[in-house]
Amino acid sequence: MAIDHHFDCIDIMHATGSADLKIWLADGTNYPGQGDIRGRQDRLADSLGKIYARLGEHQRLVLEYKFFEPAFYHTDVPDWGTSYAQVSALGDRAMVCLDTGHHAPGTNIEFIVAQLLRLGKLGSFDFNSRFYADDDLIVGAADPFQLFRILYEVIRGGGYGPDSTVAFMLDQCHNVEEKIPGQIRSVLNVQEMTARALSVDTVALAAAQEAGDVLGANGIMMDAFYSDVRTDLAAWRESRGLPADPMKAFAASGYQAKIAADRVGGTQAGWGA
Amino acid sequence: MAIDHHFDCIDIMHATGSADLKIWLADGTNYPGQGDIRGRQDRLADSLGKIYARLGEHQRLVLEYKFFEPAFYHTDVPDWGTSYAQVSALGDRAMVCLDTGHHAPGTNIEFIVAQLLRLGKLGSFDFNSRFYADDDLIVGAADPFQLFRILYEVIRGGGYGPDSTVAFMLDQCHNVEEKIPGQIRSVLNVQEMTARALSVDTVALAAAQEAGDVLGANGIMMDAFYSDVRTDLAAWRESRGLPADPMKAFAASGYQAKIAADRVGGTQAGWGA
Amino acid sequence: MAIDHHFDCIDIMHATGSADLKIWLADGTNYPGQGDIRGRQDRLADSLGKIYARLGEHQRLVLEYKFFEPAFYHTDVPDWGTSYAQVSALGDRAMVCLDTGHHAPGTNIEFIVAQLLRLGKLGSFDFNSRFYADDDLIVGAADPFQLFRILYEVIRGGGYGPDSTVAFMLDQCHNVEEKIPGQIRSVLNVQEMTARALSVDTVALAAAQEAGDVLGANGIMMDAFYSDVRTDLAAWRESRGLPADPMKAFAASGYQAKIAADRVGGTQAGWGA
Amino acid sequence: MAIDHHFDCIDIMHATGSADLKIWLADGTNYPGQGDIRGRQDRLADSLGKIYARLGEHQRLVLEYKFFEPAFYHTDVPDWGTSYAQVSALGDRAMVCLDTGHHAPGTNIEFIVAQLLRLGKLGSFDFNSRFYADDDLIVGAADPFQLFRILYEVIRGGGYGPDSTVAFMLDQCHNVEEKIPGQIRSVLNVQEMTARALSVDTVALAAAQEAGDVLGANGIMMDAFYSDVRTDLAAWRESRGLPADPMKAFAASGYQAKIAADRVGGTQAGWGA
Repeated sequence: MAIDHHFDCIDIMHATGSADLKIWLADGTNYPGQGDIRGRQDRLADSLGKIYARLGEHQRLVLEYKFFEPAFYHTDVPDWGTSYAQVSALGDRAMVCLDTGHHAPGTNIEFIVAQLLRLGKLGSFDFNSRFYADDDLIVGAADPFQLFRILYEVIRGGGYGPDSTVAFMLDQCHNVEEKIPGQIRSVLNVQEMTARALSVDTVALAAAQEAGDVLGANGIMMDAFYSDVRTDLAAWRESRGLPADPMKAFAASGYQAKIAADRVGGTQAGWGA
Repeated sequence: MAIDHHFDCIDIMHATGSADLKIWLADGTNYPGQGDIRGRQDRLADSLGKIYARLGEHQRLVLEYKFFEPAFYHTDVPDWGTSYAQVSALGDRAMVCLDTGHHAPGTNIEFIVAQLLRLGKLGSFDFNSRFYADDDLIVGAADPFQLFRILYEVIRGGGYGPDSTVAFMLDQCHNVEEKIPGQIRSVLNVQEMTARALSVDTVALAAAQEAGDVLGANGIMMDAFYSDVRTDLAAWRESRGLPADPMKAFAASGYQAKIAADRVGGTQAGWGA
Repeated sequence: MAIDHHFDCIDIMHATGSADLKIWLADGTNYPGQGDIRGRQDRLADSLGKIYARLGEHQRLVLEYKFFEPAFYHTDVPDWGTSYAQVSALGDRAMVCLDTGHHAPGTNIEFIVAQLLRLGKLGSFDFNSRFYADDDLIVGAADPFQLFRILYEVIRGGGYGPDSTVAFMLDQCHNVEEKIPGQIRSVLNVQEMTARALSVDTVALAAAQEAGDVLGANGIMMDAFYSDVRTDLAAWRESRGLPADPMKAFAASGYQAKIAADRVGGTQAGWGA
Repeated sequence: MAIDHHFDCIDIMHATGSADLKIWLADGTNYPGQGDIRGRQDRLADSLGKIYARLGEHQRLVLEYKFFEPAFYHTDVPDWGTSYAQVSALGDRAMVCLDTGHHAPGTNIEFIVAQLLRLGKLGSFDFNSRFYADDDLIVGAADPFQLFRILYEVIRGGGYGPDSTVAFMLDQCHNVEEKIPGQIRSVLNVQEMTARALSVDTVALAAAQEAGDVLGANGIMMDAFYSDVRTDLAAWRESRGLPADPMKAFAASGYQAKIAADRVGGTQAGWGA
């Protein structure tokens, strides 16, 4: 049934011109013994093979991994290694999706970014941020320096720019904040950290790394992170006829008040409790 | 220099008939920017390629991974995915070494065991146990149920028995306990948990899994874990002319007292502070 | 409003003869700056004071703590220290509730049990188990040895037996397993681990600890944990006219099939998605 | 013996005019059963009482806590709650020392800062930073935003300024970087984040919090964090006759080269391997 469902999805992709079939499998088990970990992995490989074979030649399969939840004992695709092993067995158009909230505590995410780009297997990002588990907060809200380091490795590894095939997406839950300004803030955070990462003096950095100058090399990274790019970005936006401050512009538009009035008696859509 | 050192190691392996070249790289960086994560990974691949090419046809390269420490920002081989990607690029005789203490908090280790056996890439174990980080305590001391689950997947995936090429090693630090009885206890723990894992009723388990009987399937695993195998193992040892209780036999041997007397004025060898 | 709600609860407690007012505050914030951490703590103290003053002289206030979730940046009562500081300021009848799933990764829970019993502030347990976060699995399912250690410290610290005022509760979510057998299994797990913990040879243990015999002392604990108490417990149950195997007895009763038939067309109650 | 050693320390404190006796106990156990957790806690309370009684009326006892290491199963003072419970039992001049690297993964450290200041028990900081465990990296290097939040709560709770009794210390290991510039960088990081934290518009923040404006309140915090204070701080230094850029000034001084030349044949002091 699940395979047939994916076939239906691919039909819709063909009809709509969609390029990427992103798969996140919530499957797993809650108790040791509940399932056969090894057998499930073999069946997963078999199913993905059938789905991949159905894709068109300009379509990609992108397989997301997640450390835990909703399953609490084992997850069928819990880490980038599993996703990589599975998509490598499929072919060139099968890639890994990296959700920034789907890792064990302490995981160095920019390392995984660098590795997947090196292996030619980074298909897409699901951006969000977290203090604990898969909190799905606004990207950059919990650890802006981590977002900076991730984007630095994206640029370093060729994942940024017109030739890159890495897809950037937001995957967040705006539980306590307004959704639209929350998303504007998210896009601004990625934009600002990309600007900071692009401003790293890579020539000086390479020289300091080569010389073994630990504090010098770290200082070059930190200088880019600490430099305030917001005024320059505002000017760049204005030069293109866009609002200098998108958050203020949205607030001034009255749109939020309008849709709030329209939905009186209803509730904001969400995941429920 | 590091490559030459490995060449020397391989010469010694040829001379001594050693089959496995196990590599653990402590390399990494402490501060963002200190090193070029991506460039280091490329150079690692290049170096491993040269070392692998020097191996004899009956020798293996086994690459260990470690989450962190001694490096505190990034480690060059931090996870099984990196080790797998690197050894897969080398060839059939390059394998992964799994140290049970080298994972992020919460990592499902038996899943990695199942995955690596499935991929044909589990070369060896470094056994120990931990409550926090790489504590290197006696294997099975911190979480005996985890050791049981690991050994269950080893057996399930063909990593146990005369045909298996998976090497079992202890990698522990006996900081506060006597070393020799500490190692006897370690071997006993692996032996007892292997016996428990072998006693799982796999036919009933498969039936319960197939039927979706969560509590039934879990109950079959737990029944094997909770069954006390120590009397049977003692009888098995005696049937082979071995001491029923190796811990008691060693204590009765007086060997510990003898070596303690011999080293008066010296200190037990170890990692220092 | 929240205080008034608690006053209503206390009125109901008086009417029903309930002894404990257990408070778990889901309150917290998702983003830095969203709330005033310090000010909220002061207001919490003030509110708890008003609620406590309303309690009858044979009633207790029990304050639960939780590491994170539903709030993702800060939680108002995130750890035992906060709960302890708050209830200490209230008086003798304010206690801490320890939910075994509400701690940071790696936390030594039995230490907290020992500490709270020592301070006279352990009011109650919410039992469950977890591999990752607040998974709310069957108690003892994820780490039976941890449950054993917790119950050992409960007994060691006077929290077990007819004179103890520590309340034992289950707080679990049976998402994938049948609820009633899941709860029977939970009670059995606590019972079996209590029996194992009671069987520790405390005289020999104290002697080994005093002598600095690390492996000996640990061996005494492990011997109790590894000893299979299930046959003895079955006999004890039969001696009291209870089923030897409660799981089997429930399955044989046909009750599960009966209620499943009764609720055709409905769904099992739960937390929703 | 340990108590006598502390008495000797207090004698030295009297002789030198030192105000704070800071105690970090590395004590704990590696294996369940090795020690009596409860009994050790009682003896700790007893010993601290004797040491505290010996202090002069203008001296303080400051008790540090640490999550784990060097002990791997249980630590006698593992968390702020234990340190708080122990020093509260001593008296007004017993305080808690917060080392920023001594917490479980995910712990909200600024919450503990706010709580201890509220309880009047924050005695001192050991500053450093970490990605994994007690990495002892340069403060602010791993997560500058966390350092900003910590310093914000310090200021918010009255721990900053001429009337504060909170002692700020660095406790770091410069394993791969030069020690003196590493410490200059550390002081600059604390200074810069203090300046950012002082620049939070607290009136606007309180208004946004009061209004439940999540994104507005968070935006006010982030605006202060993202504003580059380095030029202002350089001017402030110059106005006091200090070098605008202390890192450059030290490098230009030639001192590092001089001491490096002086210690040819020796090695930099450190923790060894």
